[in-house]
Amino acid sequence: MTQNAVTAAILVIGDEILSGRTKDKNIGYVADYLTALGIDLCEVRIVPDVEVEIVEALNALRHRYTYVFTTGGIGPTHDDITADSVAKAFNVEIHEDPRAIEMLLVRFKQGDLNEARRRMARIPVGASLIENPVSNAPGFNIGNVFVMAGVPAIMQAMLDNVAPLLQNGVKVLSEIIEVPGIKEGDYGVGLAKIASAFPDVSIGSYPHLTETGFSNQIVVRSRDGRLLKEAVKAVHDLLKELQAQGF
Amino acid sequence: MTQNAVTAAILVIGDEILSGRTKDKNIGYVADYLTALGIDLCEVRIVPDVEVEIVEALNALRHRYTYVFTTGGIGPTHDDITADSVAKAFNVEIHEDPRAIEMLLVRFKQGDLNEARRRMARIPVGASLIENPVSNAPGFNIGNVFVMAGVPAIMQAMLDNVAPLLQNGVKVLSEIIEVPGIKEGDYGVGLAKIASAFPDVSIGSYPHLTETGFSNQIVVRSRDGRLLKEAVKAVHDLLKELQAQGF
Repeated sequence: MTQNAVTAAILVIGDEILSGRTKDKNIGYVADYLTALGIDLCEVRIVPDVEVEIVEALNALRHRYTYVFTTGGIGPTHDDITADSVAKAFNVEIHEDPRAIEMLLVRFKQGDLNEARRRMARIPVGASLIENPVSNAPGFNIGNVFVMAGVPAIMQAMLDNVAPLLQNGVKVLSEIIEVPGIKEGDYGVGLAKIASAFPDVSIGSYPHLTETGFSNQIVVRSRDGRLLKEAVKAVHDLLKELQAQGF
Repeated sequence: MTQNAVTAAILVIGDEILSGRTKDKNIGYVADYLTALGIDLCEVRIVPDVEVEIVEALNALRHRYTYVFTTGGIGPTHDDITADSVAKAFNVEIHEDPRAIEMLLVRFKQGDLNEARRRMARIPVGASLIENPVSNAPGFNIGNVFVMAGVPAIMQAMLDNVAPLLQNGVKVLSEIIEVPGIKEGDYGVGLAKIASAFPDVSIGSYPHLTETGFSNQIVVRSRDGRLLKEAVKAVHDLLKELQAQGF
């Protein structure tokens, strides 16, 4: 499929995901969200709460894709080291940000803004803030990187605030074809021929197990509506032909 | 926490995960599984069905960790390019493997082993096979890399076959402390002091949103049972002290 002008990566930060304690719910959500905006999610990495790992992964991703979205590690405890790591990756200083303090004061009394809560106001120099309507502690945007919370409800609210800032791509059109009981191995050769006849169309075959065996879907995706329609027709024709042959 | 001798990474391969069409169910499962074996999962990457991306990610990961587990891309259709990509990463040839053909013949008649199904018997030279009790098409092991299916039920069965081959690490002991209504920001400073007093213990604080606000858990992890116990006691003491102070 033709490469899109607008690409993205997700960087999930957190020991709890790697240990299995917490099951990530953000990757799939952000993937759907970006697809709806016509932005190609090209890579995801999950790294632990270790500064050098975060810095290295972020630098690899931010130089490669239009946008990077990080989730996790921006709370008030010692294991929340994302903001400091992002500052290091960008080689900028990080300070307590008066704008972030102001946001926290909506939720907390001045006297409750102790050292731990003030961590949530540490923002790299040059970043703009991402509002958090759920619990006030902001995320931030620096360069092409958007730093968001790990708690799904907060991440989702932040993403809604980020979306208007993003350059949208040409939306990928897609069609799902439910395969009528023909096995992948029986349509694989024909499907490969269609895939090579349509280089600007992406054709995927996805089996899933049901109680009675495999059930397959073929997903046809393209940014060109005319090509999509032609490729979908070719797939339908192939399946009909195979059915006629008794598959 | 002390670095473990046995480390691992997961490489998830598939456009369908990045587009959001399929929500990954393998990362969390493998994470739990490895934790139970005392193996530290240190990194996860998700890449598309693009050879150069698979090769680059696999080479980065396999040189860095004890084991790499890949999921996805070993079926019979044109978009299943994992085996060929792994061969390229290891710079070895790939051929139709008679052992794999034999496994496929348990399920398929000779006449049904068409070009598409024979793709599933393409195995890099030097690899050993991973049995697939669900649908017979094998995974394989080459060097420190284990190549498994993307369909969760098949991946799980393959992982059971792989587990006896793995060097186990020293299991991480962990204790979850339910925080009795004290806010993260209120115990954050005290918790940071405990964390620095116990460098060989990993202490994480995990909020989640409930209908009535945040509910927090503190997770204490260590490979040293005595240290774990001491750190857990210190956390309990902190929480009790804060409760006594009216938090």
